[in-house]
Amino acid sequence: MSEPISLLEGLASTRAIRRYTDEPIPTSDLNRMLFAATRAPSGSNRQPYRFLVLRDGPGARAAKELLGATFREMWGAKRGSDGYDRGSGARDDSPKARMAWAMDTFVDRFERTSVVVLACLVHWRGGDPTEGASIYPACQNLLLAARGLGYGGVMTVWHKPVEAELKSMLAIPDEVSVAAVIPLGIPAGSHGPVRRRPLAASVFEDRWGESAPWAHDPAGTGHTSWRGGEPRG
Amino acid sequence: MSEPISLLEGLASTRAIRRYTDEPIPTSDLNRMLFAATRAPSGSNRQPYRFLVLRDGPGARAAKELLGATFREMWGAKRGSDGYDRGSGARDDSPKARMAWAMDTFVDRFERTSVVVLACLVHWRGGDPTEGASIYPACQNLLLAARGLGYGGVMTVWHKPVEAELKSMLAIPDEVSVAAVIPLGIPAGSHGPVRRRPLAASVFEDRWGESAPWAHDPAGTGHTSWRGGEPRG
Repeated sequence: MSEPISLLEGLASTRAIRRYTDEPIPTSDLNRMLFAATRAPSGSNRQPYRFLVLRDGPGARAAKELLGATFREMWGAKRGSDGYDRGSGARDDSPKARMAWAMDTFVDRFERTSVVVLACLVHWRGGDPTEGASIYPACQNLLLAARGLGYGGVMTVWHKPVEAELKSMLAIPDEVSVAAVIPLGIPAGSHGPVRRRPLAASVFEDRWGESAPWAHDPAGTGHTSWRGGEPRG
Repeated sequence: MSEPISLLEGLASTRAIRRYTDEPIPTSDLNRMLFAATRAPSGSNRQPYRFLVLRDGPGARAAKELLGATFREMWGAKRGSDGYDRGSGARDDSPKARMAWAMDTFVDRFERTSVVVLACLVHWRGGDPTEGASIYPACQNLLLAARGLGYGGVMTVWHKPVEAELKSMLAIPDEVSVAAVIPLGIPAGSHGPVRRRPLAASVFEDRWGESAPWAHDPAGTGHTSWRGGEPRG
């Protein structure tokens, strides 16, 4: 195996991966990823996160079918409403068309995804949005560890319309919610860089809307399209 | 500088740091941390996260005073209600007493914290808890990047009782919420290992409550106290 990737390089280069080969993930690597996930912080170190791993058991097969069907519906609706086939999306080589193609592949092949992890949250406050501080850092650790071991994945919340059915299928208790669905696999094909708004558009100093004077992107950083001034709120 | 830490080692060894030296953080390092933070994923890559950095400007001084006073009140109440001075907490060398001492130091010195980052979320759904998936991964990236550069921090939500006052003080718009307050600094003193429940208590396979047979902690992993069977829900 080559030199391990450094922490800072890993943070800068982990991106959503939606296309995977059909190869399985060895459980020893899954163990390493989930160990990393559970090192994340949580409020008062309560550790209310639980990870339900779906591979090829009866629960996994049923849940992957339910999720696959739902994701295809969600993507079909979004594809239309967000105009993925209009404008630059009509050109095969545009980022929009590439994204649409990756999404098609993702939802069409969902049932074949090697591993799907349900990131579950045991509630202790009644739906306070800050509860997310005790589950999503662990999800991010999982995705970063996947990157560190040569895998890729993506965090989705498209299970929401069928969450009740999913929970009943897998015996997930009432007081637990499924905070995210995270498919994981060996990346297939090539993947572009991480693209974000310029740093000065997201980092303020001392007062809302005042870009930090020292905030700048390293040379070669990929940007999403961004209208200057827009994020002043 | 020594060999950079690897991604997997960084994920496993980043812990909450609440005691800092008085030294400032160079803006070049802050820039690297915030760059890493903003590489995190968000729903549809909308990037609704904004980071408001508080150092030593007028906004920072006022906000640190407000937060310091609030944190001291919150900790005073928690110290009593959670019995930090009872049971093992009465012994100076217990983990409970060490935690209480670290918290005392944290809240007493809060105004002197070199940098306090407000992780802000521009809402696009009305308070849906899954919105946290678009801010807390970025917060975790920030804490991991701090670790990678020799700094430490902690994610807190103790600003909630004074969020309205804090927002008005810093001109944060109505449609934005402060999802977390993240103090950062150079770690002072020694810090123990990351302690979590055994992995098999948090990782299930195919059905809720069934520990993944392959889930195990590497030798030497620190554990929090845990009652077997408790997390079955």
